[in-house]
Amino acid sequence: MTTPRLSRRIPDLVPSPIREILAVIDRPGMISFAGGLPAPETFPKLDLSAVPPECLQYGPSEGEPALRQAIAAQLRDRGLDCTADQVLVLSGSQQGIDLVAKLFVDAGTRVAVESPTYLAALQAFRFFGADFAEFEPATPAAIAGAAFAYVVPTFQNPTGRCLDDAARRALAAACDAEGVTLFEDDPYRDLDYTGGAHRPVCADLRAAPWIYQGSFSKTFAPGLRLGYLACAPEFVTPLTRLKQAADLHSNRVSQWLVLQAFGDPRRGARLREFAGWYRERRDTFAQHLARHFAGLARWELPPGGLFFWLELAAGAALDTRTLLAPALERGVAFMPGEPFHAVEQPRGAIRLNFSHAAPDDAGRGLGILAEIVRDAVARL
Amino acid sequence: MTTPRLSRRIPDLVPSPIREILAVIDRPGMISFAGGLPAPETFPKLDLSAVPPECLQYGPSEGEPALRQAIAAQLRDRGLDCTADQVLVLSGSQQGIDLVAKLFVDAGTRVAVESPTYLAALQAFRFFGADFAEFEPATPAAIAGAAFAYVVPTFQNPTGRCLDDAARRALAAACDAEGVTLFEDDPYRDLDYTGGAHRPVCADLRAAPWIYQGSFSKTFAPGLRLGYLACAPEFVTPLTRLKQAADLHSNRVSQWLVLQAFGDPRRGARLREFAGWYRERRDTFAQHLARHFAGLARWELPPGGLFFWLELAAGAALDTRTLLAPALERGVAFMPGEPFHAVEQPRGAIRLNFSHAAPDDAGRGLGILAEIVRDAVARL
Repeated sequence: MTTPRLSRRIPDLVPSPIREILAVIDRPGMISFAGGLPAPETFPKLDLSAVPPECLQYGPSEGEPALRQAIAAQLRDRGLDCTADQVLVLSGSQQGIDLVAKLFVDAGTRVAVESPTYLAALQAFRFFGADFAEFEPATPAAIAGAAFAYVVPTFQNPTGRCLDDAARRALAAACDAEGVTLFEDDPYRDLDYTGGAHRPVCADLRAAPWIYQGSFSKTFAPGLRLGYLACAPEFVTPLTRLKQAADLHSNRVSQWLVLQAFGDPRRGARLREFAGWYRERRDTFAQHLARHFAGLARWELPPGGLFFWLELAAGAALDTRTLLAPALERGVAFMPGEPFHAVEQPRGAIRLNFSHAAPDDAGRGLGILAEIVRDAVARL
Repeated sequence: MTTPRLSRRIPDLVPSPIREILAVIDRPGMISFAGGLPAPETFPKLDLSAVPPECLQYGPSEGEPALRQAIAAQLRDRGLDCTADQVLVLSGSQQGIDLVAKLFVDAGTRVAVESPTYLAALQAFRFFGADFAEFEPATPAAIAGAAFAYVVPTFQNPTGRCLDDAARRALAAACDAEGVTLFEDDPYRDLDYTGGAHRPVCADLRAAPWIYQGSFSKTFAPGLRLGYLACAPEFVTPLTRLKQAADLHSNRVSQWLVLQAFGDPRRGARLREFAGWYRERRDTFAQHLARHFAGLARWELPPGGLFFWLELAAGAALDTRTLLAPALERGVAFMPGEPFHAVEQPRGAIRLNFSHAAPDDAGRGLGILAEIVRDAVARL
């Protein structure tokens, strides 16, 4: 067999640990805190009896005009000054990350990221050769010189943290002052357990270019792979061309289904009902955590999203990746914290999804996980 | 407004002329020979009443196991030795082109392509920095030194040409001898108006690595954005990781619908019926062509696919891109031939889709187009 000549980028193509873990969590009896699966209870009943036949034909790369209008109207409600022309429908918001990486990142391009941040964004930026600069949104001096700053301000994955107004204004001001494009990723905003406006950071920019993206995976159905981005006018043309080259356009039946949901007068009430369901899961999980992890870790109650972020008392002495094999062996899956950082070194933090496991399983799984942490700490 | 710092690749990001033309062909009265839209008459009736609820959740990056098995079985029937493990479901076969470009192409990587070839493949390879080498499948010496050779052997877009067995064997032998990976793109094989085995070129490789891809856009529905690739075992892992980073996974409802079609005993008969419909359109179009373009161009009756390729008698003296504005002005859309070549220079050839326009419109449109060509030739 001949050895193929691959791109220089391929050796850096490490597997997504999330996807690798998802591959084993279907094992019977496995208790999973690993993924970020939305609850199936929140999924819609599909009615395709009324899907217009033109949805089966090729469609526009930018997305269906009516859906782009509905998205733009929603974004204006959030405070973002944008029109339908600035909206691009995506095949899931992961695609937005790929397109933005293509738009900006060459080998050595500086990309400013939070630490920790969404790991699949790190992977995509790294694949195109990003040189990461880590920044704190509230004190964002480190974004200087970056091609763009990537931020998940609202119920971040993995920390669950929501930026307050001061941090949002500080980040926007720094982007304006430094001329750094802001790439704001906002998939979790509707999983809100406390209320609040959570004004997009992009809405407060005065000079810096911006890209804002959202997802229908958490509030409609991930299996339909649909998201969107909106952006400053100068990015619309290049991003549309990149979208064409990536997959021509997004699934039109999915777009039609999501558009129907936009027009459903009960949608707001349904989203609030789902948030209530998730909040209940979160609160029960917090009780289990207090029982099993008191003294062993610190955490905050996430005001939204799907995750608890546990900073173990052992700190950076502990590489949580070493906990994964013993945990999986005892039937518990979780996400080590290290891959959520641009620099993968021992961090002593783990990410736990609180919504997927049934409450009793969650308690049992957390008990097992606490034992594993305690054992590992004893061996340090 | 700050000027953003974009990737060095972005200035090369030229618009897809097809997509630009598609934007105007919706004008009332426009006769379009430009796109490659499948006939809506061939689209399935969607029944989503039985979609399993798990299709709404996140799914595997590789695709649904049952669909991968069905695809592998079909590929074995075509002569390709492969298992379900080697199959990756794609969000349309355009995505396969993007993934293969990511897998192989750095700035300056040599990529062997036919001339002409599918223009959206040229665009994707060019975006990643490909240095093109043009080759003839029947005499493929020019593939030497390429990272891969891209070929559409069966009812090619744009020429409609189908490689004979000797050319297929010559190409396979050259890939083996030179150690060049073969990337075979096969979206049109079911639009077959003459019959024949059209054994995949990949099936005859003995040593060279390979990637073979197909589409459900032409035989099911393009709006669902679903395709697939199969590949040599060493490519499965990197391509799966690239797919993860691009969009996590493909739409699961689409995958389920296509899987149902695989199990439909009437599917073979339906595909033959559609091919008959397209063949009739082709034959009527050929009559109109003979009436309007005799002496003005040469062409062959395409044995499959969706296009006639007209080599104008004026030859490379004529840049057919200059014909587009006057044609659109008179209500006729077509595809200039130049963008289908790695080197965009005047070629004197045009691509005409024969299936979209109703037969009477096609005759009228061809009459107008012939006048425009005649006028342009008179001014040379």
